[in-house]
Amino acid sequence: MAIQNALYAQSGGVTAVINASACGVIQEARLNPDQIGTVYAAHNGIIGALHEELIDTAQETDTNIAKLLHTPAGAFGSCRHKLSPESTEFTRLIEVFRAHNIGYFFYNGGGDSQDTAAKIATYSQSIGFPVTCIGIPKTVDNDLPFTDTCPGFGSVAKYVAISTREASLDVASMAASSTKVFILEVMGRHAGWIAAAAGLAGKQAHEAPHIILFPEVPFDEAKFLKRVSECTRDYGYCVVVTAEGIKNQQGKFLSEAGLRDAFGHAQLGGVAPILAQIIKKELRFKYHWAVADYLQRAARHIASAVDLEQAYALGKHAVDLALSGTSGVMPIIVREQDSPYRWSIGQVPLTDVANQEKKMPPEFIRPDGMGITEACRQYLLPLIQGEAYPPYCDGIPDYIQIKPNLIPKRLPKWEK
Amino acid sequence: MAIQNALYAQSGGVTAVINASACGVIQEARLNPDQIGTVYAAHNGIIGALHEELIDTAQETDTNIAKLLHTPAGAFGSCRHKLSPESTEFTRLIEVFRAHNIGYFFYNGGGDSQDTAAKIATYSQSIGFPVTCIGIPKTVDNDLPFTDTCPGFGSVAKYVAISTREASLDVASMAASSTKVFILEVMGRHAGWIAAAAGLAGKQAHEAPHIILFPEVPFDEAKFLKRVSECTRDYGYCVVVTAEGIKNQQGKFLSEAGLRDAFGHAQLGGVAPILAQIIKKELRFKYHWAVADYLQRAARHIASAVDLEQAYALGKHAVDLALSGTSGVMPIIVREQDSPYRWSIGQVPLTDVANQEKKMPPEFIRPDGMGITEACRQYLLPLIQGEAYPPYCDGIPDYIQIKPNLIPKRLPKWEK
Repeated sequence: MAIQNALYAQSGGVTAVINASACGVIQEARLNPDQIGTVYAAHNGIIGALHEELIDTAQETDTNIAKLLHTPAGAFGSCRHKLSPESTEFTRLIEVFRAHNIGYFFYNGGGDSQDTAAKIATYSQSIGFPVTCIGIPKTVDNDLPFTDTCPGFGSVAKYVAISTREASLDVASMAASSTKVFILEVMGRHAGWIAAAAGLAGKQAHEAPHIILFPEVPFDEAKFLKRVSECTRDYGYCVVVTAEGIKNQQGKFLSEAGLRDAFGHAQLGGVAPILAQIIKKELRFKYHWAVADYLQRAARHIASAVDLEQAYALGKHAVDLALSGTSGVMPIIVREQDSPYRWSIGQVPLTDVANQEKKMPPEFIRPDGMGITEACRQYLLPLIQGEAYPPYCDGIPDYIQIKPNLIPKRLPKWEK
Repeated sequence: MAIQNALYAQSGGVTAVINASACGVIQEARLNPDQIGTVYAAHNGIIGALHEELIDTAQETDTNIAKLLHTPAGAFGSCRHKLSPESTEFTRLIEVFRAHNIGYFFYNGGGDSQDTAAKIATYSQSIGFPVTCIGIPKTVDNDLPFTDTCPGFGSVAKYVAISTREASLDVASMAASSTKVFILEVMGRHAGWIAAAAGLAGKQAHEAPHIILFPEVPFDEAKFLKRVSECTRDYGYCVVVTAEGIKNQQGKFLSEAGLRDAFGHAQLGGVAPILAQIIKKELRFKYHWAVADYLQRAARHIASAVDLEQAYALGKHAVDLALSGTSGVMPIIVREQDSPYRWSIGQVPLTDVANQEKKMPPEFIRPDGMGITEACRQYLLPLIQGEAYPPYCDGIPDYIQIKPNLIPKRLPKWEK
């Protein structure tokens, strides 16, 4: 088999460990120079690939590539673009592949990306330039089917569990005379996995978080306020962790339902302040709220060791699959055992992964809809084990920023 | 000298390392049983002391006391109450001291608390029951005079610098096609020290944070928007770190000036969403914002080793001062040298500390008012050195929660 080059692309929202998957891909490719030539990385994701903006990772030393393992966010850039079958995008992409002798495509993303990777595999085959396409799972939302978990999730879960525990101790310290209700808003527009992870911060009823709000459970204001009252009465304070995507009974995002600015425009984003307003208006408790936003998914400083190991292993395995002649699949994490956690790597066809969204199953949500069950705890706990600390320099983590060394273009400028 | 008991109280907002000072006090007292009997801790701060709610720390094992070193927030509870000279509070407090043979008072707090400790020293002397009063500095705001830094600040500074760096890498990854402006709101109602610490996340002009907003600098909307535009144009994105307490040209908090809820009530708290609205309205950039709130000051998981060491040393030294017969002082950190950082412990009279607020000096703020100077960096950098990781259990830090063992009351119930 002739040596061909590979293209690696990051897609969608970045995570604390997506670069670990990149590291796995590049390191494994470097071990197989007789089969894979150069690993190019798409600059800013698939949009960069369409514009023939390819980063030559061969320019980076082994040391720099190793640093990807402890660097959060997308070292080569990412985007949220979904290739349109109605446009010339697929044709163009294969032109780019052909121009640079790219025979392997590794697409590191969520459900939409796996769908795209599947289509590239089929399309490239149909036009006689077959590209080996392997998906690598990634999403903090943990909403991909089949895989036990998605790389990126374990680390955000660990961050959220720790932050909830820490903030709860803070609130508890002063609740007798000060803040009685604390609200932490975490990511999750459609699935409540990240909010659920906050449940690992405490075990018993009196321990925080006392209330978790999931996108899967329509928000019931009366029930919520009643529970906030009970917690402050029984425990002296109440800690609420809410997914950003909670919806009211009409299925409308709460974050879009409430605030207006001084000019009457709807204020988008931030469900925590809206819950705080409701509590203030109805119960008059002193409150505080936090919105973790990007801090949570970029928090490499407290990444889960299990998550990191899986992200790296999946990147490496993706290359092994490609080299074994497999295409159109995504390697997944298979849970062998809960405790002690044991996992292996399996695989599923990309076409099976596409356009499915794994929400929290009902048996993971407490009957009152405001907490997690023991089954959920057993599922989540292994995913946050171990502290994968990055090295530090001058008091902050020594993260690498890859300077994008773009290779010379060979095609005319792309006009969409 | 007869053996007398000691009272330790936590005051004001808690921090990641205030319990390390408590640990220093209790451990040092245990080493001197011939001079100090029992160390009591006020339950929920000075209010608990007034109500004769005293926790018997002798009930806690050496192992548990050692765990205070790695536990954030206020293990014995805290409050924001300032004793009023017009009330019977001082009289009552000394009654409590007398009833429990308390001859030493260690007050762990900010400027107001040092003022109170000074008054207790004077008052107790005047009525013939002299209490040895030592202040122990604590405040994430870093606004106490004389001391090089306040325990609690170094850790929040480290957290904010790291979080800014991590979120910035995230934004940079996707800015080409997604979020262009990210705003992180941190604590600081009157002093900009915490916001300034974000400046440690980057060194060069193109590195984030690109804009820091201080309470010391009146907010100039036009200048701010111009700079946001320039950064997105020149660097592709713009990261803004703002202190919660920034004020408009009329001296009014921006956080109180903007949003109204659906009923027209002012929305309090959260200057980040207000800045986001301004950017959206004027520049139309896609934005994200985060509000760290309690997460920042409770973040023991990434505490500064220097901060922790100082917090512990000051607690220990407070006891040594008391045992040497000194009263009415606060031990402070004296900077001997910047790099490598060398510090020692000095002391100042409590009356000198009271009611002074150390704001950012002009020479620490960049001429444009939106960043820090090299002098500021040199001041801040030593304070965030070293990672004082807590031990972990099941994926989250093994923090201790002290069950308040209250001693029997000897006085009638206090009626204010």
